[in-house]
Amino acid sequence: MDPESFLEISNQVTKLKMYPYFDIAHSVLCALAVREDLGPGGHAFSRKHPLSCWLSTMLVVFAGGMVANGLLGEPMLAPLKNNQQILIATLAWYIVFYTPGDIGYKISKFLPVKLVFSAMKEVYRCKKVYDGVSHAAKLYPAAYFIMIIIGTLKGNGAGFTKLFERLIRGVWTPTAMEFMQPSFPTKACIVASIIFVLDLKTDLISAPHALVYFGIVIFFVYFKLSSLLLGIHDPFIPFENLFSAVFFGGLWDSISKVFGQRSIKEGEKVDTKKKD
Amino acid sequence: MDPESFLEISNQVTKLKMYPYFDIAHSVLCALAVREDLGPGGHAFSRKHPLSCWLSTMLVVFAGGMVANGLLGEPMLAPLKNNQQILIATLAWYIVFYTPGDIGYKISKFLPVKLVFSAMKEVYRCKKVYDGVSHAAKLYPAAYFIMIIIGTLKGNGAGFTKLFERLIRGVWTPTAMEFMQPSFPTKACIVASIIFVLDLKTDLISAPHALVYFGIVIFFVYFKLSSLLLGIHDPFIPFENLFSAVFFGGLWDSISKVFGQRSIKEGEKVDTKKKD
Amino acid sequence: MDPESFLEISNQVTKLKMYPYFDIAHSVLCALAVREDLGPGGHAFSRKHPLSCWLSTMLVVFAGGMVANGLLGEPMLAPLKNNQQILIATLAWYIVFYTPGDIGYKISKFLPVKLVFSAMKEVYRCKKVYDGVSHAAKLYPAAYFIMIIIGTLKGNGAGFTKLFERLIRGVWTPTAMEFMQPSFPTKACIVASIIFVLDLKTDLISAPHALVYFGIVIFFVYFKLSSLLLGIHDPFIPFENLFSAVFFGGLWDSISKVFGQRSIKEGEKVDTKKKD
Repeated sequence: MDPESFLEISNQVTKLKMYPYFDIAHSVLCALAVREDLGPGGHAFSRKHPLSCWLSTMLVVFAGGMVANGLLGEPMLAPLKNNQQILIATLAWYIVFYTPGDIGYKISKFLPVKLVFSAMKEVYRCKKVYDGVSHAAKLYPAAYFIMIIIGTLKGNGAGFTKLFERLIRGVWTPTAMEFMQPSFPTKACIVASIIFVLDLKTDLISAPHALVYFGIVIFFVYFKLSSLLLGIHDPFIPFENLFSAVFFGGLWDSISKVFGQRSIKEGEKVDTKKKD
Repeated sequence: MDPESFLEISNQVTKLKMYPYFDIAHSVLCALAVREDLGPGGHAFSRKHPLSCWLSTMLVVFAGGMVANGLLGEPMLAPLKNNQQILIATLAWYIVFYTPGDIGYKISKFLPVKLVFSAMKEVYRCKKVYDGVSHAAKLYPAAYFIMIIIGTLKGNGAGFTKLFERLIRGVWTPTAMEFMQPSFPTKACIVASIIFVLDLKTDLISAPHALVYFGIVIFFVYFKLSSLLLGIHDPFIPFENLFSAVFFGGLWDSISKVFGQRSIKEGEKVDTKKKD
Repeated sequence: MDPESFLEISNQVTKLKMYPYFDIAHSVLCALAVREDLGPGGHAFSRKHPLSCWLSTMLVVFAGGMVANGLLGEPMLAPLKNNQQILIATLAWYIVFYTPGDIGYKISKFLPVKLVFSAMKEVYRCKKVYDGVSHAAKLYPAAYFIMIIIGTLKGNGAGFTKLFERLIRGVWTPTAMEFMQPSFPTKACIVASIIFVLDLKTDLISAPHALVYFGIVIFFVYFKLSSLLLGIHDPFIPFENLFSAVFFGGLWDSISKVFGQRSIKEGEKVDTKKKD
């Protein structure tokens, strides 16, 4: 492929319209995620508590925008002001939960359909991360940290609201905190946000913006599809282990263990004393 | 009663001043609700943790405004800026919890007093629902969904903050989620919000606004009093059952059960497979 | 000391710059508090969940500003816009958790170091309370109650976010609510806020502002040091007991107990009836 037509495609991707097809894919996958989170009791739950079921689905669909708005002092409900989007989300919820014979659920679980929807959702995710970073950059031009937070939250909001979404359904799982064991989408969104911040705020990345954006879209889609098809769940783990070993004590703890184990034991003694 | 004088009364009701009598009724009933929620240990709790007791009462009194403000990106503490209202709420709290011989509690539990206060609270509730809907309509003229949410939250805020109000008192009951089994006031506020939205935004309701408003006030007061006197707790249930049967799978599930039970079993199989 | 030079010192204290030394002291003590809250498992936790550990430390460091902003409808993330402060907080966190041989932790736990840092943190706290009160006074010139809330939250934000900070680490302790048993810093901040409100809004305090401010700084530092050195944890308790006895039923309950015990028993009967 010649570079010019590649750049042309990248430009097209940057300007893709999300409404309505990408919104549909996103909403259906969100409703599916809620149903899978409910487990085998999902069918019965949806019959007994339709309001709670619908609200938690809406929270998953609009999570990113609502949380990001809340943290930036903007109206949390603003993402709900678009009636069409709510209609699409409600239809997706209805199809996944209430179609006769569960036909809607079965179709959306059907692998080829799920693959296409997942790929579309990742394209949408990339756009949301970029929108988040550039919105935060407009509000706080020097606050790199806020840009990364907002980009990550917009990209994978549902991961962070999982606790509250479950709470709406009367389930409380405080140990299922996203921060404790960040999932792959969260890590990917953090990396994408950092790249977008570098692209927007520094001269370190010399490639044109459309190429950077397209690169991240490909990265998102590629790992999503390989997770669905090949079961590769987290390509970041080796890098994390290396980073942890060097910076977060792993290496040093091992050295201490080998040579005498003195320092660690002392540390434990201090801890124990404190408790007495 | 001739129509003109009826319209005159409706107009009067629309313009009723809430401060101070309706505020007093609302605050006393809120303090009473906190005390009843505390159960038999309420007397001891109020002696041991007055700050926590007072804060949770304040949260109940001002719940609607605080939550609605929070969701609309307005200052959550703004409802507390009126010193008189805080004073009334604090006095109500003090009278219900700390009067010698528990005389204040007994008086406010006395049925005739409670009836009058409850009726006044329902009049206040209607005003709050209307204020919520029209405030949201000013901010987002086309977002019907936000109007209904804000109307409902303003009308029955305490229902939705129950979890946090209990948390302030050190009690955590994640299954007592309002969304799981919405109480009658919540449903009534949803219906009232929808009617106000129709009245404000469409031409479907040809009656003058004051009549619509007065009708909802009567509806609120009537069902509150019949709940207190006759024990009729939720007149919506038959409609809900019908709606659930038609739209949320009830009917179809029954048909499937009768004719072969095939589709449901398949659905369960899919669920089980997923878990393996 | 002659009064004029005393006033001079007070003026100097009022204008003290917080960045960077006081920020360092505050951040180190916050990281230390997180580590102590983790208990003996803190060492292992910091190796396994660095992101969760870092985020909860950041929440403790910036708690006051974030909560106060959230309640005033201002962007909750705004306190993070200063990159230098985040850098200092991150370094403090790194030093307390990850230095080889735990040397950083040991140094910051070393009593003389901790004393100096604690004293500096109290000076910082006083400034934050004052900033909170005067900021709220600018927004709501007549809302004394909001001023006190914001002053207290800014001064001891970490106390109120403890529940959420633990939640980030996957620990949920609903009974550890600050409002149930307010700690000494919370009470001291409430008192300081009330004094600042009186100073700003009334003529009851005739002393110059700098003297009032300096007095509160001395009060904060004195009780912090006496708590660290002498183990005096809460000088407010006698006053509270007196206040409770007079206003919150203590006295009356005792009188009732002595003379016949009638009224209390009746109160209990009412409670029991309600439950039946």
